[in-house]
Amino acid sequence: MALNQYTPEEPISSIATALAPAALGIVRVSGKGCIELVSKVFSRPRALLEAKGNTIVYGWILSPHEKGGAEQKSAVPEPVEGQKIDEVMCAVYRAPKSYTGEDMVEIFCHGGPAVVTAVQNLMLRSGFRQANRGEYTFRAYINGKTDLTKAEAVREIIDSHTDDSRSHAAGRLAGALYEEIDSIKKLIVDTVAAIEVEIEYPEDEETIADSFDKSNLEQAVSRLQSLVDSWKGEKLYQDGARVVLAGRTNAGKSSLFNAILKEERAIVSDIEGTTRDWLESWASINGIPVRLFDTAGLRQTEDVIEAKGVEISKSLVHDADVVLYLIDSSEGMNEEDQSFIESCTVPLILVWNKCDTSLRAEQDPTSLRGAERRGNPQPVPAVHLSAKTGQGLSELFTQIQTLLTAGLSTERTQAGLGSARQKDAVAEALERVKHALAAAADDYSLDAVVQDLEDALDSLGEVTGIVTPDDVLGTIFANFCVGK
Amino acid sequence: MALNQYTPEEPISSIATALAPAALGIVRVSGKGCIELVSKVFSRPRALLEAKGNTIVYGWILSPHEKGGAEQKSAVPEPVEGQKIDEVMCAVYRAPKSYTGEDMVEIFCHGGPAVVTAVQNLMLRSGFRQANRGEYTFRAYINGKTDLTKAEAVREIIDSHTDDSRSHAAGRLAGALYEEIDSIKKLIVDTVAAIEVEIEYPEDEETIADSFDKSNLEQAVSRLQSLVDSWKGEKLYQDGARVVLAGRTNAGKSSLFNAILKEERAIVSDIEGTTRDWLESWASINGIPVRLFDTAGLRQTEDVIEAKGVEISKSLVHDADVVLYLIDSSEGMNEEDQSFIESCTVPLILVWNKCDTSLRAEQDPTSLRGAERRGNPQPVPAVHLSAKTGQGLSELFTQIQTLLTAGLSTERTQAGLGSARQKDAVAEALERVKHALAAAADDYSLDAVVQDLEDALDSLGEVTGIVTPDDVLGTIFANFCVGK
Repeated sequence: MALNQYTPEEPISSIATALAPAALGIVRVSGKGCIELVSKVFSRPRALLEAKGNTIVYGWILSPHEKGGAEQKSAVPEPVEGQKIDEVMCAVYRAPKSYTGEDMVEIFCHGGPAVVTAVQNLMLRSGFRQANRGEYTFRAYINGKTDLTKAEAVREIIDSHTDDSRSHAAGRLAGALYEEIDSIKKLIVDTVAAIEVEIEYPEDEETIADSFDKSNLEQAVSRLQSLVDSWKGEKLYQDGARVVLAGRTNAGKSSLFNAILKEERAIVSDIEGTTRDWLESWASINGIPVRLFDTAGLRQTEDVIEAKGVEISKSLVHDADVVLYLIDSSEGMNEEDQSFIESCTVPLILVWNKCDTSLRAEQDPTSLRGAERRGNPQPVPAVHLSAKTGQGLSELFTQIQTLLTAGLSTERTQAGLGSARQKDAVAEALERVKHALAAAADDYSLDAVVQDLEDALDSLGEVTGIVTPDDVLGTIFANFCVGK
Repeated sequence: MALNQYTPEEPISSIATALAPAALGIVRVSGKGCIELVSKVFSRPRALLEAKGNTIVYGWILSPHEKGGAEQKSAVPEPVEGQKIDEVMCAVYRAPKSYTGEDMVEIFCHGGPAVVTAVQNLMLRSGFRQANRGEYTFRAYINGKTDLTKAEAVREIIDSHTDDSRSHAAGRLAGALYEEIDSIKKLIVDTVAAIEVEIEYPEDEETIADSFDKSNLEQAVSRLQSLVDSWKGEKLYQDGARVVLAGRTNAGKSSLFNAILKEERAIVSDIEGTTRDWLESWASINGIPVRLFDTAGLRQTEDVIEAKGVEISKSLVHDADVVLYLIDSSEGMNEEDQSFIESCTVPLILVWNKCDTSLRAEQDPTSLRGAERRGNPQPVPAVHLSAKTGQGLSELFTQIQTLLTAGLSTERTQAGLGSARQKDAVAEALERVKHALAAAADDYSLDAVVQDLEDALDSLGEVTGIVTPDDVLGTIFANFCVGK
């Protein structure tokens, strides 16, 4: 979305709730004169026009008769005002006390897709333009109601797949990241100010490094580094990880798939359809959003259709973040298993399934050991479980979590970054501050140090939006839902 | 849902919007003390407690720390009050001025499924019980905020598949049916009153029929009959019709399926998945909701899997309300086509497809005639079209509409019925009034006539809910969404 398609104050309208049958739905409008425009299709125009901000007005949305067209196909018995669309509550907000900072109306109608669509279509015939993605939040930003870290957190909280993901986003929405950036900026600004004084009124220091207190910059480096380090962990909670079930036919892949979903189906449980080739669903593994795949077998085959399934399975395994390789404990590992494990290049957990029924497993503990991979000294982690009884599942979840978070900063003792855009800008700021310290140590000019620090401040300004080129803005808001 | 599970005034809570990523979501609570309960997990409790009815309060939903548990897994930087769940607006309603007639709060949060779920889960830990289906509307009914025709229209408007369906429901929601029933009841009540006077102070009429004015009852019979007649048409707009595409391979079934959806995809466009055997989607055919099926071929086959597809196609055709049988105009009709058309027992439209490319069609107009069916003197309706160019589609829609509405009262010059329950009750009332008239004509006792009319009034009372046994109520509200 090019930024020039956002035209502040122009009346915009959009459906703000998901389009599926539900008790309630919301059509949201914002912009100059929007309350007047809604009042023209409302059964109690005066009540709406006179409503104070942050109040709610009951009434009917009416489609004026003279407009004619599709609505007249089936005439319902009518009062004089117009065809009744729906019985609603209108929340009235008056500028600047609203989400966008403009006048706004939120129309709470019944949640049927046909109803919500009818109300929105009427708005589009009544002087409103369809809102672009993220346009409400964009207006909130340009009207000073939010900064960019909070704006991006809005999109993030909406797209959260697990409660932990939501919780990470809520911290940013509440301003945790904004405050951390602001506080780091202060450290740099204070240093710049001190150096400027030194430039104006130079004293006789031995070196440039001695001419100002570097502890503020050292603290800034450490905190910027923490922010950069946080991104991989934050990204895991935002985008989730791909976990693929593999193993021979009858090792119990589908049973484990179902057992995991039964235990930990993610809050957004959009199973994306059953195919001959694989099943997938979101699951929450100790709070980490995981896209779980159940693949077809991996055996060599001459059947053309089955061969295609094997091809797809291989590609799913290749793209996985973690592979769970199942073995039937009662049958033990064979050459096919050994060969898969040795050749698999992605992190893998060996899952000894059916441990409830396997006598052999108890008699021959050596058959349950983790396998080893050529050229990889790390032993393959192994879990014994029963997909049938659920025994061992929590141990499996811990192992998956360990693999997914290995080397990541997920402790969240500090603010975390919420987008790749933020990470790039913070990493740039970090580089500039490091460069400034190096320049000072190497006895470069104070002007060069100041230039580095100002570049760092510009980068940090991009994170919160205080100094932001237009093209960056367009990218941020184009990822929003319509209606936000 | 047994009616005793509805416990008015008990604080209830539920998610009221569809659970998919969207700008906004709503969690709705109702019952005694509900504003106080919400205030305990709200960042500005005093503002909420002091809020007047029909006003909106900004704040954060907070999960108190001492409750512990899952929320503490990943601690976000916190103010003292509790873990931040989401930034929200709370709409406060005070009894009796609310949907349910009780105190209510509607929490407008971000529309992410994880967010809405987190808010609802917090409510369930904070003194609220999960609302049953239709429980809000049930409370509205018992608190005199709605009658049963309007209550059923709420469910109907939410489930509407097309704008015409919505429009029919909106009429009932606005009270069109309630008023018609009420007006018919008046006619009967007036007659009963007149007869009661006659019983108390008898005059010397020749016959019972002469002892009171029958015109009111005759008018009641006519209007009740209109209502009963309306039901089939209303049902068509509520439930929709099944239209099945059939024909030989390459007759263009899939092209027509896609052309219809491109033109008239229904507002609720839930394509329910592609299978080997058939495709289906909702479409709006001149405002009528239609479930459109694209079947596999119908040819005899020895391939087992294909044979299963043919079996399913036959069953879809058998259950269809209308079958569209496609023939490639350039190939003409063969014996297989003729045999299908002759044996098909459901209403059928012959669709001569590819009329844009067919030279033969122009040269040999006889090949384009509608076919005839043995033992069925009605000629089979035929349409010439091009699924590719869209030419002829609107003619096809008119033909489908004609077949679906044949003999139905869909003109909607009067109020229509909204449910089978209403239809049964109105039909019973109609029978009783007719019986009363017959009893009077046959010179039965006036008491017998009065008894019939009182039975009729009881039946009409069931429609609006003024006299309604508990078991009928349970059935009505159990069909609602949770959150209504």
